[in-house]
Amino acid sequence: MMDFPAVSPPDSRAAAAAKRRQDILTKPTGALGRLEDLSVWVSACQGACPPRQFERARVVVFAGDHGVARTGVSAYPPEVTAQMVANIDAGGAAINVLSGVAGASVRVVDIAVDCEQPLTDEIGAHKVRRSSGNIALEDALSADEVVAALEAGRRLADDEVDAGADLLIAGDMGIGNTTAATALIATLTDTEPVAVVGRGTGIDDAAWARKVAAVRDAMFRGRQFRPDPVGLLRTCGGADLAAMAGFCAQAAVRRTPLLLDGVVVTAAALVADRMAPGARAWWQAGHRSTEPAHTLALAHLELAPIIDLGLRLGEGTGAAVALPVLRAAVATLASMATFSDAGVSDRAAD
Amino acid sequence: MMDFPAVSPPDSRAAAAAKRRQDILTKPTGALGRLEDLSVWVSACQGACPPRQFERARVVVFAGDHGVARTGVSAYPPEVTAQMVANIDAGGAAINVLSGVAGASVRVVDIAVDCEQPLTDEIGAHKVRRSSGNIALEDALSADEVVAALEAGRRLADDEVDAGADLLIAGDMGIGNTTAATALIATLTDTEPVAVVGRGTGIDDAAWARKVAAVRDAMFRGRQFRPDPVGLLRTCGGADLAAMAGFCAQAAVRRTPLLLDGVVVTAAALVADRMAPGARAWWQAGHRSTEPAHTLALAHLELAPIIDLGLRLGEGTGAAVALPVLRAAVATLASMATFSDAGVSDRAAD
Repeated sequence: MMDFPAVSPPDSRAAAAAKRRQDILTKPTGALGRLEDLSVWVSACQGACPPRQFERARVVVFAGDHGVARTGVSAYPPEVTAQMVANIDAGGAAINVLSGVAGASVRVVDIAVDCEQPLTDEIGAHKVRRSSGNIALEDALSADEVVAALEAGRRLADDEVDAGADLLIAGDMGIGNTTAATALIATLTDTEPVAVVGRGTGIDDAAWARKVAAVRDAMFRGRQFRPDPVGLLRTCGGADLAAMAGFCAQAAVRRTPLLLDGVVVTAAALVADRMAPGARAWWQAGHRSTEPAHTLALAHLELAPIIDLGLRLGEGTGAAVALPVLRAAVATLASMATFSDAGVSDRAAD
Repeated sequence: MMDFPAVSPPDSRAAAAAKRRQDILTKPTGALGRLEDLSVWVSACQGACPPRQFERARVVVFAGDHGVARTGVSAYPPEVTAQMVANIDAGGAAINVLSGVAGASVRVVDIAVDCEQPLTDEIGAHKVRRSSGNIALEDALSADEVVAALEAGRRLADDEVDAGADLLIAGDMGIGNTTAATALIATLTDTEPVAVVGRGTGIDDAAWARKVAAVRDAMFRGRQFRPDPVGLLRTCGGADLAAMAGFCAQAAVRRTPLLLDGVVVTAAALVADRMAPGARAWWQAGHRSTEPAHTLALAHLELAPIIDLGLRLGEGTGAAVALPVLRAAVATLASMATFSDAGVSDRAAD
């Protein structure tokens, strides 16, 4: 078993200073809406007002296969996971392009891809196993493997923060991973599979029915582990999901803000907040995907998405599209003139 | 009277090519959601697939005072308009900071600010008059002035497109301008003022009641001009709104994509689409503000906002926050690898 140290909250004094500063900037009070809340959050995470613009925003894509993918729950064959790892490494995937626009850099790690050899030594340095087990029939991981995967995620967060990352994004790549993510979310929120199973990469009705059955079977075995997040990751999750959970929790332990992406990362985050209570205060929801389980998990985490544009791609793409909005929030608080700077009349005192 | 030449639609062949290209990029079909639609729209506007990234995105802020502001419909005194023109010119306003993040440049023009002298000759080069009339009591403009204001907006669009602008954003600055914008929208959509008058810069209940009365009085005089967009701008609008309408219409005539901002610009756009039918095909809605009339106008234009973050500032800020999303859309279509480029397996044929 592994434990996370207690998570300390973001800095409330910096948050209060940020709120006061927003009120003296040359705009009506509150007129920047959610941007004001986001700027206050970044100030609190950084312990500084005004906040600093992000200089090393970092996307880590966690790749892993899932045995359940061989049962026809996805529109794509399992070999796509390894092919997409190569595509991300080569810079051709959506996450590479969107990170470029957003000013973030991308790293892909092979946590549990079903291939003979990891694409490179560096990509495979944190590998736990080849594919996770078919959660409809068997545990995703052994007791040792789930700890190894959590440790891998923790280590990756530590490595990135030690290298200077000031904003983290977790992304996912793995055929079948929305099935495991949905099983985790449905179990933790006590929801019927039919209410939350989505179309993933774009499956037809028959595949959707198989996916509902797989989630239901996984939940049947996993339900007893509802109070035990590590047990739940072991039975109904997977190595990639456990690594993402460790990563999200450790970002909070290291007081580093993190943007969540879609249903897979948010499922891991929902588990992570159980392992490291209070971790959610260090996260914002980058976007809302079309997966019903994603909306459910965000509601349980009490996080409101920044962007809601019907994305359903994973890889960290929704968070990457949201990152410029977060940068905009930081920039207003850091760089706008105040009423007294600019000689602009404030409203009459109410 | 002035007329706009017929607006030609964006290029449907480029749109079709863009749709086909989206389907061979390394992601599930449709998985980028609204980003795919936006990328197709940019391709159609540019007549090119893949589209080019915007190299000269340009924000033009239209500043003007409104006589109605002296009747207590705003939380801020009218002199703020001129002060904010100076703040924008000095780079201290929200639109400057947000344009910086989004990679756009900003220009402010004095169309009808109530000041002795325009801040600079350049800022005042298109000035129509000092303040528009109090629409609760009198026409906003004379017949000559409304034509001059429309011509100013048209000339500004031509100047920017001739200087190389490949994306335009119209912004507004003017105490009292949401009152005139709401009167225009309520008249064109035949809506009761109480249903659409919002809180503007953050007014209290008494000011809100005064604003409802002002909108109702303006509509009483303006209603007869509902089929006559120029007459409507003259009676219930203002010089800044007429200039914005001319600008939005001329952007479409010049086949240049434009991002709408909040309720003021969108009111002008609603009028512009009557003057230049089909112009709306060249526009996207940058965001949805908290003003009820904005939502109403967007619905009538059949435009869905890109961002919905509770902004209510104007100046072009909502469009500026949306611009990186549009850039993200362009970048994916322009730069992502295809399945065959990357050696990734596509889904089985359905």
